[in-house]
Amino acid sequence: MQIDLNCDLGEAFGNYSFGGDTDIIPLITSANIACGFHAGDQHVMNETIKLAKANHIGIGAHPGLPDLQGFGRRNMDLTPDEVYDVVVYQLGALNGFCKIHDVQLNHVKPHGALYQMGARNKEIANAIAQAVYDFDKTLIYVGLSNTLLISEAQAVGLKTASEVFADRRYEDDGQLVSRKDNDALITDTEEAINQVLRMVTEQKVITKNKNEIDIQADTICVHGDGAHALEFVSQIRERLTKEGISITKIGG
Amino acid sequence: MQIDLNCDLGEAFGNYSFGGDTDIIPLITSANIACGFHAGDQHVMNETIKLAKANHIGIGAHPGLPDLQGFGRRNMDLTPDEVYDVVVYQLGALNGFCKIHDVQLNHVKPHGALYQMGARNKEIANAIAQAVYDFDKTLIYVGLSNTLLISEAQAVGLKTASEVFADRRYEDDGQLVSRKDNDALITDTEEAINQVLRMVTEQKVITKNKNEIDIQADTICVHGDGAHALEFVSQIRERLTKEGISITKIGG
Amino acid sequence: MQIDLNCDLGEAFGNYSFGGDTDIIPLITSANIACGFHAGDQHVMNETIKLAKANHIGIGAHPGLPDLQGFGRRNMDLTPDEVYDVVVYQLGALNGFCKIHDVQLNHVKPHGALYQMGARNKEIANAIAQAVYDFDKTLIYVGLSNTLLISEAQAVGLKTASEVFADRRYEDDGQLVSRKDNDALITDTEEAINQVLRMVTEQKVITKNKNEIDIQADTICVHGDGAHALEFVSQIRERLTKEGISITKIGG
Amino acid sequence: MQIDLNCDLGEAFGNYSFGGDTDIIPLITSANIACGFHAGDQHVMNETIKLAKANHIGIGAHPGLPDLQGFGRRNMDLTPDEVYDVVVYQLGALNGFCKIHDVQLNHVKPHGALYQMGARNKEIANAIAQAVYDFDKTLIYVGLSNTLLISEAQAVGLKTASEVFADRRYEDDGQLVSRKDNDALITDTEEAINQVLRMVTEQKVITKNKNEIDIQADTICVHGDGAHALEFVSQIRERLTKEGISITKIGG
Repeated sequence: MQIDLNCDLGEAFGNYSFGGDTDIIPLITSANIACGFHAGDQHVMNETIKLAKANHIGIGAHPGLPDLQGFGRRNMDLTPDEVYDVVVYQLGALNGFCKIHDVQLNHVKPHGALYQMGARNKEIANAIAQAVYDFDKTLIYVGLSNTLLISEAQAVGLKTASEVFADRRYEDDGQLVSRKDNDALITDTEEAINQVLRMVTEQKVITKNKNEIDIQADTICVHGDGAHALEFVSQIRERLTKEGISITKIGG
Repeated sequence: MQIDLNCDLGEAFGNYSFGGDTDIIPLITSANIACGFHAGDQHVMNETIKLAKANHIGIGAHPGLPDLQGFGRRNMDLTPDEVYDVVVYQLGALNGFCKIHDVQLNHVKPHGALYQMGARNKEIANAIAQAVYDFDKTLIYVGLSNTLLISEAQAVGLKTASEVFADRRYEDDGQLVSRKDNDALITDTEEAINQVLRMVTEQKVITKNKNEIDIQADTICVHGDGAHALEFVSQIRERLTKEGISITKIGG
Repeated sequence: MQIDLNCDLGEAFGNYSFGGDTDIIPLITSANIACGFHAGDQHVMNETIKLAKANHIGIGAHPGLPDLQGFGRRNMDLTPDEVYDVVVYQLGALNGFCKIHDVQLNHVKPHGALYQMGARNKEIANAIAQAVYDFDKTLIYVGLSNTLLISEAQAVGLKTASEVFADRRYEDDGQLVSRKDNDALITDTEEAINQVLRMVTEQKVITKNKNEIDIQADTICVHGDGAHALEFVSQIRERLTKEGISITKIGG
Repeated sequence: MQIDLNCDLGEAFGNYSFGGDTDIIPLITSANIACGFHAGDQHVMNETIKLAKANHIGIGAHPGLPDLQGFGRRNMDLTPDEVYDVVVYQLGALNGFCKIHDVQLNHVKPHGALYQMGARNKEIANAIAQAVYDFDKTLIYVGLSNTLLISEAQAVGLKTASEVFADRRYEDDGQLVSRKDNDALITDTEEAINQVLRMVTEQKVITKNKNEIDIQADTICVHGDGAHALEFVSQIRERLTKEGISITKIGG
């Protein structure tokens, strides 16, 4: 039994630093690297690919909406064709830095509002997936477990990795409880770790309505900002390892 | 004996149209396609690659400075490292659209201020060339004949194509007379055609100071905006053909 | 009886031209000038204020969403606070050019998706109106007749001018038929002119469902792009004048 | 005898925080607020004006080049006309937030490369100053002591405040030693404090070549990023106060 730990990296921009990329990297197996639209810039992308390569973790593209000010978190009414082009552009740009460092792009995970839009809208989900497939059909597609992100990616012919969250609560249909709701987050560390262990070992999760639903867990989304976040990731690693689960990059 | 005719394409942006891409395409052999920094956007890039593929012309990247408002024509004090990253990003992005349309990138020609900076500054010229080489060492590098653009590209190991201009006057050192000077442009069509013919057939050009200098001519820069420009390109094609010179894409 | 004719101006950007500002200006009484977010830039704003001043037409701000690529026509999930700040910034920026040319800002009309969002969402409509009021409570607010744009602007204490369209069909609730629908546009010139005359003289319009609804008409939206558009505006002017209706800028 | 302490504020952008605005504000008398080009955005500008108003410090505009990625620190070849428009736009935009909070703009200080370009190029210096004057001729213009920034501002009719630096070394002509030089910075706190005291009380400074030159000191540039910077500002305040020098905002 194996699981991947993925984290968003390379979200600095110009004179602005962001996150603690060098701290979290030893704890994860896959990096989702911003591509210059919602965050990141050419220099940051170059440095982040170097860092990921040096640490032998899976390199992934993390394309977002063209909204730096909103960090790609504000829905925008893009047509499916616009979404398709936006994804191809960013995959290509990040792949440029992969080529100069002679590394392979391993996966793609849409960011923020693009991820949320794809999880709920079939045409958008299809546009993202088709862009990834047309760009490179061997890429692994990371999307929210149980949603259109995964089903549409599989429909176009991509390999997928279903993503789960340790510290987020779930709706009965498998969507994440909106951050606008009070009970969106699991703040108790033990409860969060137990949720993630159960998702990984039993493929089950208890929803906010106390129902048990099936959930596929191929990769866990973690964060690297701050001492608490790092400590939490360390604990998840320890508990997973104790359970005999191998922490291995997607497709690895 | 052969020569290429290259033209900048794909310079529209969002709601803004630009140039007459469909009109000039049948007359040229290579397209320099904007990559979204000084001009162009994801949709325009996708459409322009399609158009170039359908017309079997050479596909080239036309990376510029990150200055949409200035159309990449205003010098910016980027460090060589910044220039390197800016070029890699844009090559990658355009290559994304090449991949989805299953075509090969054939050449690279820096745009506007980046081209001018590279023609006069060795470190900038080296940074551009190294970025191209590291991205794909088989690409053909198009730069102003007789300048650092060409010598630095050759120094890093790239194949080059020396570019000449039909309607611009030359300094004794091979640089173009600045557009700020009154005598920068050759406005007489016959004179312009004679200049280009001589550059192609004899590798010579008469400078504005009436000196004859050597010049290498592998590709001629043409423009597609307006009826006069199109007519001029047609005349150049006719005269070159009459002289027995084959109009063939770079590296073709 | 009087009516205003308003037109969007100053939508060029950098190297990109747009519209036929100098052609339409003699035919209109109010200009909505882009403020650099969805279109326009500092130079264009300066030139357009100069042009409007020289032609003695009403000067208005035309703030839009921060989406140059989408020309401000794509809805974005901005919070009301974000909308408020976006509007204040743009009003201030345009007012800078009014100050250097010693002219007064006369009105404000939201652009594109911001206009549509405000017509249908009370919180957004309130945020736009409050921003205008806080910036300068003497400004006249132009919004779609019969919608939240007008009622919310009046609620915060602004004078309003209700806008009507000659060539667009109306829903029974006073909203415009979406451009996605086949019958959104009135393509017959005579029918369009009759619609606008009736709106102005009788405050009535026939909806797409053949119902008659009340409509307030203080200003008519016209366009200046192309010979046909200009001819249409000339005809509207002629017919309005023949009916004894004075064509006068809002608040004039 | 009096002196002003000025600091750049409001340099955050979107999701990116920057500097320690709330920490430094009690120690300074004037704030230079970024206007959304090199840093800052609408929300940040609104919040920063609020903060400055609540702390009764002088509010100034800090316009920069349109280069967010380079933080306005990279020279760009803008024409004087382009510089003029860029400054008017940013003054207007910031003034929008002054209007909604019913506060007056007190001064203007160009940022980064714009400041450096103006200190050395007469046409650029004139364009900045003319923009400020045309926008509001009562504004106080802050520029590097002894340079074209000050003389051109005075030539167009503006009141000026000559800026000095505690921790930077000077050339014999009054320009700052370039940051590229090893001896650009004074790292010894006591030496820096002595330099600033002497500039304020005697209007003299010792250059890097050990010459004494005249220098006008109306305002001292300080920084608020980090504990060391804050401690340094506290020491400067203490020493100035001990010398009987009143710390008062420009024009206050």
